[in-house]
Amino acid sequence: MMLKTHHCGQLTKANIGETVVLNGWVQRRRDLGGVLFIDLRDRSGLVQIVFNPDFSGEALAIADRARNEYVLAVKGAVVERDAETVNTNLGTGEIEVRITEIEILNAAKNPPFFIEDGIEIDETLRLKHRYLDLRRPEMQKTLMLRSKAAKVFRDYLDENGFLDIETPILTKSTPEGARDYLVPSRVHPGEFFALPQSPQLFKQLLMVSGLERYYQIARCFRDEDLRADRQPEFTQVDIETSFMSQDQLLEMMEQLLVRLFRETIGVEVATPFQRLTYAEAMDKYGSDKPDLRFGLELSTVTDIVADSDVKVFNMIAKNGGIVKALNAKGCATWSRKELDDLQPFASRYGGKGLAWITVKEGEWKGPIVKFFKEEEIAALTERLNVEEGDLLIFSADKPKVVYDVLGNLRQKVGRDLGLIDDKAYKFLWVVDFPMFEYDEDEKRYAAMHHPFTRPNDEDLHLFDTDPGQMRAQAYDIVLNGYEVGGGSMRIYQREVQEKMFKALGFSPEEAKAEFGFLLEAFEYGTPPHGGMAYGLDRLIMLLAGRTNLRETIAFPKTASASDPLTDAPGAVSDKQLEELSIRVALKQPAAKA
Amino acid sequence: MMLKTHHCGQLTKANIGETVVLNGWVQRRRDLGGVLFIDLRDRSGLVQIVFNPDFSGEALAIADRARNEYVLAVKGAVVERDAETVNTNLGTGEIEVRITEIEILNAAKNPPFFIEDGIEIDETLRLKHRYLDLRRPEMQKTLMLRSKAAKVFRDYLDENGFLDIETPILTKSTPEGARDYLVPSRVHPGEFFALPQSPQLFKQLLMVSGLERYYQIARCFRDEDLRADRQPEFTQVDIETSFMSQDQLLEMMEQLLVRLFRETIGVEVATPFQRLTYAEAMDKYGSDKPDLRFGLELSTVTDIVADSDVKVFNMIAKNGGIVKALNAKGCATWSRKELDDLQPFASRYGGKGLAWITVKEGEWKGPIVKFFKEEEIAALTERLNVEEGDLLIFSADKPKVVYDVLGNLRQKVGRDLGLIDDKAYKFLWVVDFPMFEYDEDEKRYAAMHHPFTRPNDEDLHLFDTDPGQMRAQAYDIVLNGYEVGGGSMRIYQREVQEKMFKALGFSPEEAKAEFGFLLEAFEYGTPPHGGMAYGLDRLIMLLAGRTNLRETIAFPKTASASDPLTDAPGAVSDKQLEELSIRVALKQPAAKA
Repeated sequence: MMLKTHHCGQLTKANIGETVVLNGWVQRRRDLGGVLFIDLRDRSGLVQIVFNPDFSGEALAIADRARNEYVLAVKGAVVERDAETVNTNLGTGEIEVRITEIEILNAAKNPPFFIEDGIEIDETLRLKHRYLDLRRPEMQKTLMLRSKAAKVFRDYLDENGFLDIETPILTKSTPEGARDYLVPSRVHPGEFFALPQSPQLFKQLLMVSGLERYYQIARCFRDEDLRADRQPEFTQVDIETSFMSQDQLLEMMEQLLVRLFRETIGVEVATPFQRLTYAEAMDKYGSDKPDLRFGLELSTVTDIVADSDVKVFNMIAKNGGIVKALNAKGCATWSRKELDDLQPFASRYGGKGLAWITVKEGEWKGPIVKFFKEEEIAALTERLNVEEGDLLIFSADKPKVVYDVLGNLRQKVGRDLGLIDDKAYKFLWVVDFPMFEYDEDEKRYAAMHHPFTRPNDEDLHLFDTDPGQMRAQAYDIVLNGYEVGGGSMRIYQREVQEKMFKALGFSPEEAKAEFGFLLEAFEYGTPPHGGMAYGLDRLIMLLAGRTNLRETIAFPKTASASDPLTDAPGAVSDKQLEELSIRVALKQPAAKA
Repeated sequence: MMLKTHHCGQLTKANIGETVVLNGWVQRRRDLGGVLFIDLRDRSGLVQIVFNPDFSGEALAIADRARNEYVLAVKGAVVERDAETVNTNLGTGEIEVRITEIEILNAAKNPPFFIEDGIEIDETLRLKHRYLDLRRPEMQKTLMLRSKAAKVFRDYLDENGFLDIETPILTKSTPEGARDYLVPSRVHPGEFFALPQSPQLFKQLLMVSGLERYYQIARCFRDEDLRADRQPEFTQVDIETSFMSQDQLLEMMEQLLVRLFRETIGVEVATPFQRLTYAEAMDKYGSDKPDLRFGLELSTVTDIVADSDVKVFNMIAKNGGIVKALNAKGCATWSRKELDDLQPFASRYGGKGLAWITVKEGEWKGPIVKFFKEEEIAALTERLNVEEGDLLIFSADKPKVVYDVLGNLRQKVGRDLGLIDDKAYKFLWVVDFPMFEYDEDEKRYAAMHHPFTRPNDEDLHLFDTDPGQMRAQAYDIVLNGYEVGGGSMRIYQREVQEKMFKALGFSPEEAKAEFGFLLEAFEYGTPPHGGMAYGLDRLIMLLAGRTNLRETIAFPKTASASDPLTDAPGAVSDKQLEELSIRVALKQPAAKA
C-alpha cells in the first residue's frame, strides 16, 4: 500500500517538482476528452489530481473505475497549473498532481447526501450516517477547533499549576439538582449508581485533600427534557482552586479566555472584561446574561409614571411593581402589525401587555400618550433620550416579568435593527448574584447557585435578618448573550455552612442526611476554595459560529435522547436484567375512549 | 485573608531575607521552651515556621491554638537556620520562616490516621476518608504524576496530528465482550443505554469519517468481578489512525513511550523495543507478556525426551503434547520442601506435576534421572546449558498448560533469585498474535483480539483451509511482565470482513444483526486504519512504582465495586424508578435447610 507523504490540502507551489504520495477520498471527477480530473480530499482539504494517457499509463484505466467517495492512494509529480486553469478559490489551486501510480484502497456506495458544506437535509439522516456527515469540511473544522480548544485549556491550566484529576462516573444519586441517570448495581442488588451532573462534590473534596488546583474536562449527565442547546451528556471544563481570591481567579480566567480565542480563531479579546452586578445587569438589560454587542439599555421610569393618569402604571407602581421602558431607536416606522405583535411577544414571557409610543415629526403618538402630563413627557424625554423617529415600549409588572419581557424584546430589536456585529466577542462577568431565590410554592428560600456558595463577607450579618438581600460570591461569564460558564467561592467555615442550611430550612439532621460525607470532610481542615466550570459544547458553538450544540459533538443525541446511528438506547436481554435484579415495568397506556 | 506568595516546599536559601505569605496545613508542632515550631505542609512539601515571643507578638498565642491539620495563613521572613538545626532530610531544611502574622483559616478534628507516607491501615478506612488519604505525600505525588503523564500523552499525540475527540458514554449494549453497565432510558421506556467497554466502534467510525488521526483519554466500563488490578471504571488512552502501516504506528508509539518515561520519571528508555512474535514469546517465556528484566528462558525438549524411558514424557509427546524445561540456575540447593512445593504450584496453573533434576557435585539427582539414557543426558546438558548447581524443572502436557505452568514458575524463580532489577523498564512488542482461538465448548473459532482485526496479508489464503494457523496484525505492548496496551490494524475490505464473519460461524444475517451500522459504514469508502489503547491506570501504577491500581485513582471503587466515601451505590426513590419504568426484582434468598 502506498502511504501518504503529504496532505492533499497543504500542497502549494513550493512543492512543484516533488513526487508525492497522497491518500484520500474522491470528492468529484471530471472526464475532459480522455483526461481525468479528480478532486482528492483528506481532512486538510482538496487537491486536483490528473490522469492523462501521456503520463498515467495503466493508472488512468484504474482511476476511471473510481466514483465519489472511493478511497485512493496515488503517486505523482506536483506541477504548476496553466495560468488559465488556476483556481483561486482553492488553497492548492495553483498546482495539480500528475498521477503515475494508483491503488484503489476501497470502493464506496453512492452516499445518501453530498459531502459538502451547507447541505440542508434532515438532521436525523445526517445523524444516522454521522460517519459521512463528519466528512463534510465544516464538521471536520469544528471538531479540529474543539480538539484545539481543549488543548489550549489544558496547556494554560497546566502551566498555572492545575492538576488534571479524574473523578468517578459511577457515583451516588443526590436529591438536589436535575434528574439523575441511574445505573443498577449487580453486586449490590436493589442499589444504584448515578452518573454525575457535575464533579462538584469531588472537586471540593480534592480541595479538602490539599491538591490545591484541580481541573478536568469532565463528562456530565442530566436526564432532562432536551432543548436545542441541551444534551443528555455534555462536557464541562471544571476548575477548582484553593487559596485564591475571587478577583485573582477571575483575572486568571480572563487570561485563559484571551488565550483560547487567540489560539483557536485568532481573535484578540480585550481585558479586563466588563463586570456588572446581577442587579445592574437586570436593571440595564433585563437579563443576567445580556448581549453587550449592542446598547439599547432599558430605563426604569417607575418614579416618573407612578402618579400619571395611566391607570395600570399607577396601580402597579403602588403595588410593588415597576415600569421600565425600551427606546427602540428609529423604530417609529414600525407597521401597525409589528406594533400589534408586541402583545403576543409579551405574553410569551409572562407579560400582560406592552404600551408603545412613536415619535414622528415631533409628535408623540400611541394609545397612552393622552394620559401623560406635560412634565411627565419632559421627564421621559430626558430619561429615555427621546429623539425623532424613536419607538418607546413600556412594560409594567412584577420586576421578574418586566425583566423577562423587555430583556427579550431588547434582544429581538437589536437583532432586527442589525445592531449585532457577528464578528464581535463581548465578554461580561456578572457578579454579586443573590444568595437565595424565594420559592413561592414551597414558601422557603432556595440557593440560587448551590448550598455551598459563599456569601459576600459584608452580607454575612443578613443571614438572620434578611437572607433575600444577601449577595453571593458567585459569578457567571457571559459571551454575546450566552452564559458560557459560572462558579463561586465556596463556604469553608462550619458555622457559615450551618447558617446556610438553616436559611434553606434544613434541620441539622437533614443537612447531615443529605450532605453528610462532605460536611464530615469539612471538619478536617478545609482551605478557602472556589472554582468555576465552562460549558465546552456551548463555547465551541460560539467559537465555530454555529447555532446548534449538536454540530459541536461528534456523536450527539437527538432531542429525544437517542442516537439514530447506533440505535441507542435499545432492548437488552432478560438475562442482563435478571443479573441486575431489575425488571421493566411499563406504565399501562391510558384506555382509549 | 492572607494569600500565599510562595509554596511551602519550594523555599530555599535563595529566599533568605524575603517576606513571604504561606498557606498550608499543620503537619506537626513542637513547643520548645515557649518557642513554637510548626512544620507547615502544602502540596509542594514542608517548611518549618517559627513563633517566638521575640518577633511573633500576638501571632504566637494564636498559633498556640493550632493543632494537626489546622489550615493556616502565615506571614514572615525567611531566615537561615543555625548550622546545628539544619535538616538535610528536607528540601527546605536550610531555612525557616519567622512568623509575624497568622490567621487560622480553619480548624481540624484529629484525623483518623496520620498524614504521612507508608501508613499500614485498613484500606476501607483510607477510602472512607479519601480526602485525608489524598493529603499524604505519596498519594499527591502519584496524582501529580498521573496529571503529568496525561499531559505528555496529549502533547505528543497533538504534535503528531491526532485530534482529541470525545465519544459517547451513553451508548448501546453489544453482545460481545464483557458484561455491560446499563442505564435505563426514561424517554424510551423499557430501553437501555450501555456504558462503553471501549470506544472501539466509534473510533473506527471516526476513521470512516476521514478524521484520520484520533485520540481520547477515555473512561471505559466493565461490570466484571474485580481483581486487584481491575476497576469497574478505568481509563484508557485510546488511539486510532488511518493510512499508516503497523510498523509506522509502532515506531511512533515507541517514541511516545520514550517521551512519557523521560518527562514523568526521568528514565531514558532504549529504542527500538524488542519484538517477539506470539509464538516466540510462548516458546521462550511461556507467556504473551513476559518480564524481560531477566533471562531464564524455557527450552523445548520434546524431541530429546520423546523416546526416553520416562513414560509420561513419552506418552505426552506421542499425543501432541510438549515437554519443556526451565533451568533454574544455581537452585540445586533447594530444600526438599521447596521441591515438593512445585507440585501444588503446577496444579494452580492446571498442570499435573513437575519433574525435577538437581546437579550437585557433577551428579544428576532426582526421581526421573534413572530413566534417561546417556545420550539423552548429553543432549539435555547441551540444550539446557546445564552446569554445576543447576535445578532442571520439566513440564509435560498440552502446550497451553506447559506455558502457563513454566511461564509462572519462571517469574517466581526470577523473583526468588533476585534477578529482577526494580529500576529497569523493559518494553516488548508481542506481534503476530493468532487470529483465532478454538473454543472447545462451542466447537468454533473465536476472535482472539476482535472480529475487526486484520490478518497478516500472507495468511489471507488460510481463511478457507486452516484458520487456526492465521496470524493477526495485532500487537501488545508489554512492560516488565504487564500488558500495558494493545491494538491491531483493522479489516477495511468488505470481502475480508465477510470471510472473517464466516470463519467465526456467523451467517451474513447474523453479522448484520450484530454489527449492522458498522458494516454499513464500511461500505462508504473506508480507509485502511488501525490503532491501539493503553491502560492508563496500570501504566501509572508502573511509573509510580505502586502495586495496586487503586493507588493511582483519586476516588477508586473497592473490590465489591462500591465507594465507602460517598456510599455509592445506594438506594433511590420509588419515584425515580417509576420515571424510568423499572422495578427492583430481588432474587429470593435460598430457603435455609
